[in-house]
Amino acid sequence: MQWKNKMNEYMLMVNDALETYIGEHQSVNEEVFEAMKYSLFAGGKRLRPVFSLAVCELLGKEPKQAIPYACALEMIHTYSLVHDDLPAMDNDEMRRGKPTNHIIYGEGIAILAGDGLLNKAYEIMIDHTLKLENPSFGLKAMKSIADASGTNGMIGGQTADLLNEGKKVDERTLAYIHHNKTGALIAAALKAGSYMAEVDDDEAEGWERIGYALGLAFQIQDDLLDIEGNTSEMGKPAGSDERNKKMTYPALYGIEASRERMDELTKEVQMFLKPYGEKSNFLVMLTSALMNRRS
Amino acid sequence: MQWKNKMNEYMLMVNDALETYIGEHQSVNEEVFEAMKYSLFAGGKRLRPVFSLAVCELLGKEPKQAIPYACALEMIHTYSLVHDDLPAMDNDEMRRGKPTNHIIYGEGIAILAGDGLLNKAYEIMIDHTLKLENPSFGLKAMKSIADASGTNGMIGGQTADLLNEGKKVDERTLAYIHHNKTGALIAAALKAGSYMAEVDDDEAEGWERIGYALGLAFQIQDDLLDIEGNTSEMGKPAGSDERNKKMTYPALYGIEASRERMDELTKEVQMFLKPYGEKSNFLVMLTSALMNRRS
Repeated sequence: MQWKNKMNEYMLMVNDALETYIGEHQSVNEEVFEAMKYSLFAGGKRLRPVFSLAVCELLGKEPKQAIPYACALEMIHTYSLVHDDLPAMDNDEMRRGKPTNHIIYGEGIAILAGDGLLNKAYEIMIDHTLKLENPSFGLKAMKSIADASGTNGMIGGQTADLLNEGKKVDERTLAYIHHNKTGALIAAALKAGSYMAEVDDDEAEGWERIGYALGLAFQIQDDLLDIEGNTSEMGKPAGSDERNKKMTYPALYGIEASRERMDELTKEVQMFLKPYGEKSNFLVMLTSALMNRRS
Repeated sequence: MQWKNKMNEYMLMVNDALETYIGEHQSVNEEVFEAMKYSLFAGGKRLRPVFSLAVCELLGKEPKQAIPYACALEMIHTYSLVHDDLPAMDNDEMRRGKPTNHIIYGEGIAILAGDGLLNKAYEIMIDHTLKLENPSFGLKAMKSIADASGTNGMIGGQTADLLNEGKKVDERTLAYIHHNKTGALIAAALKAGSYMAEVDDDEAEGWERIGYALGLAFQIQDDLLDIEGNTSEMGKPAGSDERNKKMTYPALYGIEASRERMDELTKEVQMFLKPYGEKSNFLVMLTSALMNRRS
């Protein structure tokens, strides 16, 4: 299947770049670099960076143009997982089939490794944007990512999630959590990728909008898998959301309605991609695969 | 004393801007905004932002040009304190005479508030840089701040500090910790301020170098105060470094040698400022006051 080759190609680009970006350390601060690398190379699917590269290429530019912003997104996603897994947050000991960061390095280093990944994301983007002939697209990509990651984006979503753990949340709160905790960073991946193809703000906002639809579909599928999946395929215990008393889409709306909503959103994404014809094949296939995944 | 009026003027500018930058929230993510504001307005001396504004003004520009970068520095400094105070790090319950962030809001929200402040620092700088006619100086100021804050700067210093707690460290390790944990952000404050006055890289690096001297002098004075000061003036228990088994400059070199080194560094800073004549009065006075402070 050709799209899988493309996926591997993008993933290799991202992994190579991440290795380079982590950079040099001295013996005295080595531990925080080790901890950052541990979580960065713990088997993440690289979905967010791949979305950025794919959108950039679909819009006619070299995917490597988006690499610094794509890698920054992956670092931000990874830091959010490291902090989210801490005892004071979700208190998870396993992630992607491996012990979580603080289990290996201790809580103090895990906090610093998360901080380090977040800061490094900006170091990379700023360095690259400084070298651009026209920095305005780099700054716009950075703004998309920064806004999506902050207290009115991902961190806001995590706050609402943390404060509502074990509570019955209403539809509005659940929508806020999904929109911000998962949706914002996926939407930023598509938007930043489009800016690296130098589109105007209207077109970039179109990609952002469809990114939110994709993010919600992905979240619903994640929640469905948590109910139906099996532990070894997922790398975390099935049913953990229920045990952690996380409010999920299927818990609020039921399994059937959740599946319908997911299909609806997937169709919306694919309708958006259709006018791009063959160039959108990869994203169409990837979206289908994500919605049919077993883990 | 005229320099104190100037100090108040700068502090008011910073406080007003910080209030504005914190921005809008919804009820669902309100708690993380409250936690961020709590630590941001817990009585910090605003030294780093004041240094940025003062250098920018000394070099002939309006100090307000440096405001976004100055406020970003204060947010980064504040986030580092919030995370540093956590039980997994220094486990401090009091700071500046008030309960620390996690004592009031809980560890989970304190972690998110720290993350939120760090991310907000970049949101502010990116937003402002996007609006500049010539974004390259904004990007350079951002790069100075990002590099100083990361794993080869402040976070590296915190890592070395955390891993060496309770150990007898050698001179090299102590120098690394001081250079990075305190020095880097003060050096970045001066450097970023100079970039906002549109100086070239050589001149900016001169300000950075003198910032490191100032940072080390400030750190030594801090450590001396911890030994000699009294609890109510400092807002944290005197002697807490010794009880926490923190390695300090006086512990390694003795009180007398520490005072001498501090005086030497202060002279170095004032020699650097001298050629600027009257325009440097404020920074000369502020430096003297810092080295003679009682808390």
